[in-house]
Amino acid sequence: MMDDKPQHECGVFGIYAPDEDVARLTFFGLYSLQHRGQESAGIAVSNGRRINLHKEMGLVAQVFDENSLRPLQGHLAIGHTRYSTTGSSKLQNAQPFVVESALGPLAVGHNGNLTNAHDLRQELLNRGVGLTSSSDSEVITQMLAGGEGRTWDEKLRVFMVRAQGAYCLTVLTKDALFAVRDPWGLHPLCIGRVGETGWVVASESCALATIGAQFEREVAPGEIIAIGEDGPRTVARMPAPDRAMCLFEYIYFARPDSLVEGQTLHAARVAQGRELARESPADADIVIPVPDSAVPAAIGYAQASGIPYSEGLIKNRYIGRTFIQPDDRLRKVGIQLKFNPLADNLEGKRVVLIDDSIVRGNTSGPIVRLLRDAGAVEVHMRVSSPPIRHPCFLGVDMASYPELIAHRMSIPEIEDFLGVDSLAYLSLDGLVRATGHADAGFCQGCFTGRYPVDIHLVEKETFEN
Amino acid sequence: MMDDKPQHECGVFGIYAPDEDVARLTFFGLYSLQHRGQESAGIAVSNGRRINLHKEMGLVAQVFDENSLRPLQGHLAIGHTRYSTTGSSKLQNAQPFVVESALGPLAVGHNGNLTNAHDLRQELLNRGVGLTSSSDSEVITQMLAGGEGRTWDEKLRVFMVRAQGAYCLTVLTKDALFAVRDPWGLHPLCIGRVGETGWVVASESCALATIGAQFEREVAPGEIIAIGEDGPRTVARMPAPDRAMCLFEYIYFARPDSLVEGQTLHAARVAQGRELARESPADADIVIPVPDSAVPAAIGYAQASGIPYSEGLIKNRYIGRTFIQPDDRLRKVGIQLKFNPLADNLEGKRVVLIDDSIVRGNTSGPIVRLLRDAGAVEVHMRVSSPPIRHPCFLGVDMASYPELIAHRMSIPEIEDFLGVDSLAYLSLDGLVRATGHADAGFCQGCFTGRYPVDIHLVEKETFEN
Amino acid sequence: MMDDKPQHECGVFGIYAPDEDVARLTFFGLYSLQHRGQESAGIAVSNGRRINLHKEMGLVAQVFDENSLRPLQGHLAIGHTRYSTTGSSKLQNAQPFVVESALGPLAVGHNGNLTNAHDLRQELLNRGVGLTSSSDSEVITQMLAGGEGRTWDEKLRVFMVRAQGAYCLTVLTKDALFAVRDPWGLHPLCIGRVGETGWVVASESCALATIGAQFEREVAPGEIIAIGEDGPRTVARMPAPDRAMCLFEYIYFARPDSLVEGQTLHAARVAQGRELARESPADADIVIPVPDSAVPAAIGYAQASGIPYSEGLIKNRYIGRTFIQPDDRLRKVGIQLKFNPLADNLEGKRVVLIDDSIVRGNTSGPIVRLLRDAGAVEVHMRVSSPPIRHPCFLGVDMASYPELIAHRMSIPEIEDFLGVDSLAYLSLDGLVRATGHADAGFCQGCFTGRYPVDIHLVEKETFEN
Amino acid sequence: MMDDKPQHECGVFGIYAPDEDVARLTFFGLYSLQHRGQESAGIAVSNGRRINLHKEMGLVAQVFDENSLRPLQGHLAIGHTRYSTTGSSKLQNAQPFVVESALGPLAVGHNGNLTNAHDLRQELLNRGVGLTSSSDSEVITQMLAGGEGRTWDEKLRVFMVRAQGAYCLTVLTKDALFAVRDPWGLHPLCIGRVGETGWVVASESCALATIGAQFEREVAPGEIIAIGEDGPRTVARMPAPDRAMCLFEYIYFARPDSLVEGQTLHAARVAQGRELARESPADADIVIPVPDSAVPAAIGYAQASGIPYSEGLIKNRYIGRTFIQPDDRLRKVGIQLKFNPLADNLEGKRVVLIDDSIVRGNTSGPIVRLLRDAGAVEVHMRVSSPPIRHPCFLGVDMASYPELIAHRMSIPEIEDFLGVDSLAYLSLDGLVRATGHADAGFCQGCFTGRYPVDIHLVEKETFEN
Ligand SMILES: Nc1ncnc2c1ncn2[C@@H]1O[C@H](COP(=O)(O)OP(=O)(O)O)[C@@H](O)[C@H]1O
Ligand SMILES: Nc1ncnc2c1ncn2[C@@H]1O[C@H](COP(=O)(O)OP(=O)(O)O)[C@@H](O)[C@H]1O
Ligand SMILES: Nc1ncnc2c1ncn2[C@@H]1O[C@H](COP(=O)(O)OP(=O)(O)O)[C@@H](O)[C@H]1O
Ligand SMILES: Nc1ncnc2c1ncn2[C@@H]1O[C@H](COP(=O)(O)OP(=O)(O)O)[C@@H](O)[C@H]1O
Ligand code: SF4
Ligand code: SF4
Ligand code: SF4
Ligand code: SF4
Ligand SMILES: [Mg+2]
Ligand SMILES: [Mg+2]
Ligand SMILES: [Mg+2]
Ligand SMILES: [Mg+2]
Repeated sequence: MMDDKPQHECGVFGIYAPDEDVARLTFFGLYSLQHRGQESAGIAVSNGRRINLHKEMGLVAQVFDENSLRPLQGHLAIGHTRYSTTGSSKLQNAQPFVVESALGPLAVGHNGNLTNAHDLRQELLNRGVGLTSSSDSEVITQMLAGGEGRTWDEKLRVFMVRAQGAYCLTVLTKDALFAVRDPWGLHPLCIGRVGETGWVVASESCALATIGAQFEREVAPGEIIAIGEDGPRTVARMPAPDRAMCLFEYIYFARPDSLVEGQTLHAARVAQGRELARESPADADIVIPVPDSAVPAAIGYAQASGIPYSEGLIKNRYIGRTFIQPDDRLRKVGIQLKFNPLADNLEGKRVVLIDDSIVRGNTSGPIVRLLRDAGAVEVHMRVSSPPIRHPCFLGVDMASYPELIAHRMSIPEIEDFLGVDSLAYLSLDGLVRATGHADAGFCQGCFTGRYPVDIHLVEKETFEN
Repeated sequence: MMDDKPQHECGVFGIYAPDEDVARLTFFGLYSLQHRGQESAGIAVSNGRRINLHKEMGLVAQVFDENSLRPLQGHLAIGHTRYSTTGSSKLQNAQPFVVESALGPLAVGHNGNLTNAHDLRQELLNRGVGLTSSSDSEVITQMLAGGEGRTWDEKLRVFMVRAQGAYCLTVLTKDALFAVRDPWGLHPLCIGRVGETGWVVASESCALATIGAQFEREVAPGEIIAIGEDGPRTVARMPAPDRAMCLFEYIYFARPDSLVEGQTLHAARVAQGRELARESPADADIVIPVPDSAVPAAIGYAQASGIPYSEGLIKNRYIGRTFIQPDDRLRKVGIQLKFNPLADNLEGKRVVLIDDSIVRGNTSGPIVRLLRDAGAVEVHMRVSSPPIRHPCFLGVDMASYPELIAHRMSIPEIEDFLGVDSLAYLSLDGLVRATGHADAGFCQGCFTGRYPVDIHLVEKETFEN
Repeated sequence: MMDDKPQHECGVFGIYAPDEDVARLTFFGLYSLQHRGQESAGIAVSNGRRINLHKEMGLVAQVFDENSLRPLQGHLAIGHTRYSTTGSSKLQNAQPFVVESALGPLAVGHNGNLTNAHDLRQELLNRGVGLTSSSDSEVITQMLAGGEGRTWDEKLRVFMVRAQGAYCLTVLTKDALFAVRDPWGLHPLCIGRVGETGWVVASESCALATIGAQFEREVAPGEIIAIGEDGPRTVARMPAPDRAMCLFEYIYFARPDSLVEGQTLHAARVAQGRELARESPADADIVIPVPDSAVPAAIGYAQASGIPYSEGLIKNRYIGRTFIQPDDRLRKVGIQLKFNPLADNLEGKRVVLIDDSIVRGNTSGPIVRLLRDAGAVEVHMRVSSPPIRHPCFLGVDMASYPELIAHRMSIPEIEDFLGVDSLAYLSLDGLVRATGHADAGFCQGCFTGRYPVDIHLVEKETFEN
Repeated sequence: MMDDKPQHECGVFGIYAPDEDVARLTFFGLYSLQHRGQESAGIAVSNGRRINLHKEMGLVAQVFDENSLRPLQGHLAIGHTRYSTTGSSKLQNAQPFVVESALGPLAVGHNGNLTNAHDLRQELLNRGVGLTSSSDSEVITQMLAGGEGRTWDEKLRVFMVRAQGAYCLTVLTKDALFAVRDPWGLHPLCIGRVGETGWVVASESCALATIGAQFEREVAPGEIIAIGEDGPRTVARMPAPDRAMCLFEYIYFARPDSLVEGQTLHAARVAQGRELARESPADADIVIPVPDSAVPAAIGYAQASGIPYSEGLIKNRYIGRTFIQPDDRLRKVGIQLKFNPLADNLEGKRVVLIDDSIVRGNTSGPIVRLLRDAGAVEVHMRVSSPPIRHPCFLGVDMASYPELIAHRMSIPEIEDFLGVDSLAYLSLDGLVRATGHADAGFCQGCFTGRYPVDIHLVEKETFEN
């Protein structure tokens, strides 16, 4: 299927709740974090003595049934849903990683990307640790298992001293759950209460809502929280550089109903649409989104511009992994396997087409043609993010330099390439303004090439491959 | 997962196209008809000599991979995707049904429900035909295989004389494809061209668009079309009683981008929303849909009322079959496994909540509570269909009398039961008006109890069970 | 894997036992009849009201687990394990066949081959019955479902009037189990008691022993036994032509511990070896079998000849279905994938090599070479059956005329072809003598071309294909 | 299913053969080593740059199909088939283990048991290596990955200095295959040539024969062989203590056609039977084995005693893993699910019953009763191994002290317990004599409690659990 979106890396979840069926709650938590990774899923549970694990390739609902859940008894657990950045989507890369260590069993779930993974990996190999996968999450696990420190608290702090880049971790030991967020706060992580005595952490607050937990607060950048018998305890707040939240969580990744900095991402995206309307108005009859992700921005654009919101494209809701290849005829049909136009709404209309982002630019052109074939007389494309001119090295699978259309072409060239009557992107300022927290720090690496973290190591590795 | 919707019965597809990989096109056709049935899928292909079949329980994309597609070589094919009305979702009920007959091999796919199936079934048993399933589609298959007539043309006409009720059929013989629609035209069926020489029939036009086929026209009520070497030929137009299209295809079933009577169902549903706004205005701040099916009606309501359209509920997009049961805690959480509210949009707002239908009424109450908990100060529910007071006996799994909330309660009682500030349904007249074809005949059985077909036989059977 | 043996067709099993878990006993019965068919297995159970079925491709132990057994509740059941003669090993040919009929539900399991299946099939098609498979067992099922007769007793008698050829049937209705054996008694079928009140029928007595049932007697040729609430009852003994038991059940098919006519087949095969030693002595140092099937005959040959019995070939015990194809190197290695020689025992020895039969002759040559390579100085092959010069049309997959080595070559030619120092087959007289029932009638079709049943119909069909 | 045998631990295989499809040959090699382990199977292949792996739970033929074999391209490979001693039969214990190390990729397959695994494991944990499984084979892998030494040669020598106990290893690096056998030579390992330029190593010579390779010699105790571009090279012969081959390989484990010390195990077992006859004659009519493993010993006993060899028990050949539990009735039937008696041969006979070993003694009693029920008038049991009075700590899953019948009871008590007329075991001297190499050293731990290796570490661990 044709696709032109950045790819999530992972969703993490953790729970400490003596009165609950923690594996079952983890399952439903992961279920609501499914959009953060569809390649593998896993749950590790501790009963205070040992850690049991089940993980497999596939969607959460495919990986678990009552049989695989049954052995996962205990009172604390972590879960993970993974999208692989590297293309090597194999079971041995699935998470959580579980190892036995000198301090007892250890399970780790990771969302993000270490920029110095290559160095750390080399260090482990030199220290004589054999590694079974290409995943930087195994590197983290072995660093924790074998790193300096007499306690988990110490080991986690040592880890944070050594690690560079993006990481939200849930760490399970025999009797405690840890939540760790990198000092930049690149990706979201929050904590809530479940029932009388239980605590839960998750990549996004939607996972809390889904299992009926109460959102408490975000885990602070650089914070390590330990949750044990006595409830949560802040182990450390590591010295934090400037805050740098991933702007793409605002634009596309996180679920619209998740909360970041006190507002839903839906509201943030509606605001992006409003900004976009202000910055780049269009003379048109209807505003339509590329469903589903661009719906809030389109609603915002419509509200601010006064042009009526409408639907112009229907997305096959069962789009998912199919093993059947399109043949030549179907490749020509192309985008229609995913979207069909609503001719009634388009016929004779001047259309503002809203999408949240353009990465390679391979689907926008066919969508525009689809709209024209269905009768649209003008198509004005408006994108609720700035042009993506640089890859992400911090946990998001964006694309490489030569693939990025905005790296290769100027805006007029892209306009031409897509066959639109006009094209405009949201400005970086406008985007930041729309977050409602213009003063908070944001990562803007993929837009400006200025990353909050030193990336020369990953870059090097990338160029070598 | 909680659900309160009528259930589709089936999607049918057929293709005659010597220059195409017909099984592959059928796969993608079924893929876009997935919403009409998620329990089993199957494809039967003829190469002019024999018919090969593959069918299994599961979604289209799970049932087929390149291995199962490979043996399906030929130039004509039919496909089927099934939702079981009877609860007996077993492989032996999966379609297409394929049998060897005196006239050679025969495959049948069926969408609908025969009201005299019980009688016809008994007749077959008495004639000495052993039946392997409880499906009325096997009854149809055996009636065709063994019914009177020296040719398929004759057999199909005899069948139509005998059958009562709803049926859209695709029938595959060694060298021809037949499309058959019941005389009332209860469910949709259309025909289109693919490539230079190919023809395709499908339950909905979205399947044509998906494979790049050109919509030609609807199959007429009572029409039998044969497609062979020389293209399509109308075998017969059986004497048709009054036309009676299923209104629920307009309200909920068919995909919004499918065409019926020359307009998309999206347009029809927007019109329903407009009618509803006219009939039952509300004093409110925002209009929100129960996603996804009520989106067009909500857009229509917003347009006609001038109240801004917004989103207030996010639906987990990966909701699908899970094998994990909620426990008590999760059952209490309930509706949140499926929907989460957008507090930002709801806080302090008077909300018009649009849904397309209420069947049992078990999900609307929890949704209303969710909105209130998220800060909505008033909830005015508007439903884009009339109250459902009767079951459907024509191929739609609605619910039985005692389950139907509008059969058990008056509108004020339902209002109370759901905890809404006000509740209004679209009138039957309004609904018919919104179709844009008020003069065409419609089935209104589930609303009025007056069915176009004699249903005393099914009723009897139903009461006996 | 290289193979040169006739192929079993099927094993049937039936049980009526109100105090037992009949599906579980059927499972273990089938488990011990696994040698009669390895392609699919199935169990149908009645609880007095309805029949539930589970069948799948694969070995008995693969087809059933506790989950698939659980729904199979009841007090009477039949089971089937199938080897397909036709090569079309598809699920739709798996047995038992279950249909609904005018007299209620019906399940049928069949071992054998009808010689007039083609005619009967045509008759059914003409009567208007659509057939879903190529199996003559479906023909039988539909003949019973729709044939003349007001009761099952009558229908079974009518069936026996119409059917020609080999058939052992277990038939399950709502409340009775029937066992039917063709008038020639071609294949074995026996009955026994289980527990206080239960009854069981099976292709071979080994299935009775396995579940702790007491062997009672063989079902007589032409007999129909009904087992219901009041225990077994002989419904009819159809007029029987000359008895004609399949000699190949004596030679190879049935398990050595099964009883036929009061003796084990092991004893019969030891006697065949003794006869063979008498008829065709050899001047040699050791007698070795081609394991496992020729072991008893080799023991008999050793006893009668006084030449020591030994083992000279080890057979990989895990030989079974593999999906991996040998490449060229392995094809050259060939027979060693299945057998390895015991050089210690062969070095410098003159060997009598015993096998039970030679069909195509493709494995005996490589075995002989293997023995010579391992040091055997002479190889005298002795076969405990006569030369197979004709195909079987009565339920055994032998091979077609041009494939049968003894049809194409004289004994000296075969001797030459196999590279043996001498070759002798057991005479037909010797074989019959070894059964210990020389006066009973035997089918000898594959040896003499004289079949007990008119086979011109099958022959015709065979030549046409 | 009832069972009373020691359990194999593992089979290892390795190949270096630029001209061959090494994964395919490894598959067939493992296929013939299936008897050494039925719980999981795996193949790792190197193409000179990277190592690819496929391993799964199940039999070799279930784990591999052409799809899983396809990615395993290369010119050197190792394979493994595993029986788990620990009961923890999980995928994470399946072999080969593959890790990335400072010297590049590494794959290890292991047969045996390290007696100081607990210490070595602790050392690794202390060194900061997280371990993912409970398997001592992972310990070996991490020791090699991270142990001292600048080359693989050195690392392997260091490993051998540190390791105590039984280990046959095949080790795969990017460009070399290593074969390693512990200094005592506890379990077998041999090397052969395949084709012009290829080399192969395997646990047993039967694997060489199966793929048409030429047996060259056994790997010497304490030897490390490296196979690379230039063929095999002896890296080291580690200082060897007294030789101590596992006597149970002679008695039961290894396939009868495998060669040890220049003779087949079949010959060794026939010799055991002869010794047994000499030591413990019996006045009887027939000698019968408990099939299949005791057949050679029974043949030997018959030859030496002059009492005719016969078969008295038939073993269901399809005995394998079933998921169906016997119920009470079937538990009573018990041993008959596995063996059926041949009454013809037993009726009125005085029987010598030969088995190779008695571990817990739970199946011999039921077998004796079976023989008596079938008419045997006397049963004289003769066992071709000495009484097992101690567990094995060297890679064989024997049973724990309290389970071992010969640990708990005297011979007369066992006689009584089994209900035999007489019982005799082969003497240790007789057993050693039968090997034909009385002067070679043998491990006799399970018979005498004197193990060649210090076992106090394992014992301690065992008692603690
Ligand atoms: N209800 C929802 N459930 C899950 N994901 C959602 C939902 N709403 C929005 N999203 C976000 O939208 C993304 C999917 O957007 P969509 O436009 O449908 O597909 P694409 O990834 O092709 O852009 C998801 O990755 C997710 O982050
Ligand atoms: N893009 C689409 N793809 C598939 N089905 C759609 C689509 N849009 C609307 N539908 C219709 O909406 C129905 C699903 O509606 P939704 O409200 O999401 O779930 P529910 O069945 O619980 O009401 C489908 O059955 C289908 O007929
Ligand atoms: N113990 C047994 N279990 C199952 N089948 C057996 C047994 N002993 C003999 N047989 C018979 O022997 C046949 C298998 O013989 P064998 O020589 O091993 O293989 P092949 O079919 O290649 O000749 C089976 O089909 C079966 O009828
Ligand atoms: N042909 C063979 N193929 C595989 N294993 C064999 C063979 N012959 C003997 N064996 C050995 O015999 C053992 C099986 O013996 P058997 O007596 O049938 O079962 P049990 O393990 O119950 O004693 C195998 O583990 C194997 O070592
Ligand atoms: S580079 Fe872009 S996608 Fe990556 S973390 Fe920064 S803002 Fe997010
Ligand atoms: S009764 Fe209702 S659901 Fe059924 S066909 Fe008529 S309108 Fe459609
Ligand atoms: S022809 Fe041969 S195999 Fe067939 S039934 Fe007769 S004896 Fe048996
Ligand atoms: S203790 Fe026994 S089984 Fe173990 S290695 Fe020694 S001889 Fe073999
Ligand atoms: Mg999108
Ligand atoms: Mg809906
Ligand atoms: Mg054989
Ligand atoms: Mg044994």
